[in-house]
Amino acid sequence: MPRTTATTAPTPAAVPRRGRPRDAGRDRALLDATLAVLGESGYAALTTAAVAARAGTSTATLYRRWSSKEDLVIAAATTYSEGLDVDTDTGGVEGDLRALLRDKAAALTGEGGRVLRALIGEATHNTALAEALTAAVLAPVHRRIGGIVRRAVARGEIPPPADTDLLGDVVVGPIVSHFFLTARLPDQVDPATAEATADRLLPFALRALGGQVF
Amino acid sequence: MPRTTATTAPTPAAVPRRGRPRDAGRDRALLDATLAVLGESGYAALTTAAVAARAGTSTATLYRRWSSKEDLVIAAATTYSEGLDVDTDTGGVEGDLRALLRDKAAALTGEGGRVLRALIGEATHNTALAEALTAAVLAPVHRRIGGIVRRAVARGEIPPPADTDLLGDVVVGPIVSHFFLTARLPDQVDPATAEATADRLLPFALRALGGQVF
Repeated sequence: MPRTTATTAPTPAAVPRRGRPRDAGRDRALLDATLAVLGESGYAALTTAAVAARAGTSTATLYRRWSSKEDLVIAAATTYSEGLDVDTDTGGVEGDLRALLRDKAAALTGEGGRVLRALIGEATHNTALAEALTAAVLAPVHRRIGGIVRRAVARGEIPPPADTDLLGDVVVGPIVSHFFLTARLPDQVDPATAEATADRLLPFALRALGGQVF
Repeated sequence: MPRTTATTAPTPAAVPRRGRPRDAGRDRALLDATLAVLGESGYAALTTAAVAARAGTSTATLYRRWSSKEDLVIAAATTYSEGLDVDTDTGGVEGDLRALLRDKAAALTGEGGRVLRALIGEATHNTALAEALTAAVLAPVHRRIGGIVRRAVARGEIPPPADTDLLGDVVVGPIVSHFFLTARLPDQVDPATAEATADRLLPFALRALGGQVF
């Protein structure tokens, strides 16, 4: 068997953990650097050399963790989306939807919005990235909306929806369309405007689900 | 005044029309070739040489009409979108919205959907293209929705909307989200499924605008 590890044989106690993550801090630094470079340069112009340099490490270190630029970006997108969709039960459908739409408005604008825009742009012609984004970003939103709707139906605030598959598109489609399908750059939208836009979209979302708007 | 036209002074009758369009058929062939190459290769991989070859002409001919790849793609996008949004007054808000959503579903899927996906992907980091798409594709949809809503209010079918600026996002955002923010490729959606999806989104759109769904 060829030796693939150290050139001298250390005692078992001295063997560092092989594979990833063997240094969570360095992994995190590389993923953060990926998001930063992605936001600045977009997917096409991103190089693993630029990411490694930004993280203060080598491309060899990077490639020990991710075998390609695509793998790296998918891992970064997954990390980025963690914690984006924390469902909060506010006790009412209006409050739940307001919290969701405000979270989305924040995620779609500012620096994070620039990253997401680069990812979505590339995903329009990169199936592997599109699948990763669907799993990492879309699926959690859809699950969160599913929870909001179930609670609202249980409280008698809205009728049971006829077409549960489409609820995610119905609730978040308008805000994605608003911030992404225009010449408006996401980092030119300040947080107060993002939140106000979420609040303006709230009555439409509530009515679409069959809720009362007062 | 400096002369900005021909270097020799021909008699008026002999002067060919300068600038574009001097041969509408060739312009059209180049724009159609642009859309075909865009759908196959995406924006980044599109070359003016490939477009010229596809149209059976030279890049010199192409550059006499459009000064850059970006200009060419913007012109192609504008041509492509012409006639996409013909407002049809069906006599009722439900019929008007059904026609609009079916038109959008058709435009977002099939071969045209692949072109639009390439354009939207590139527009996420190309401001000039984003502005052109806003003018050529989004503005006509928003005008059409404005007309539908005005007629519906006049007929007493819906209350006057509080926030007219957002109506375009509210009505078309869900269908764009459905066909573009997923790993599903637009040319894998057959016309019958596209139309059925439009019809499934109709009650949500109608309710969002404050209309009755029976």
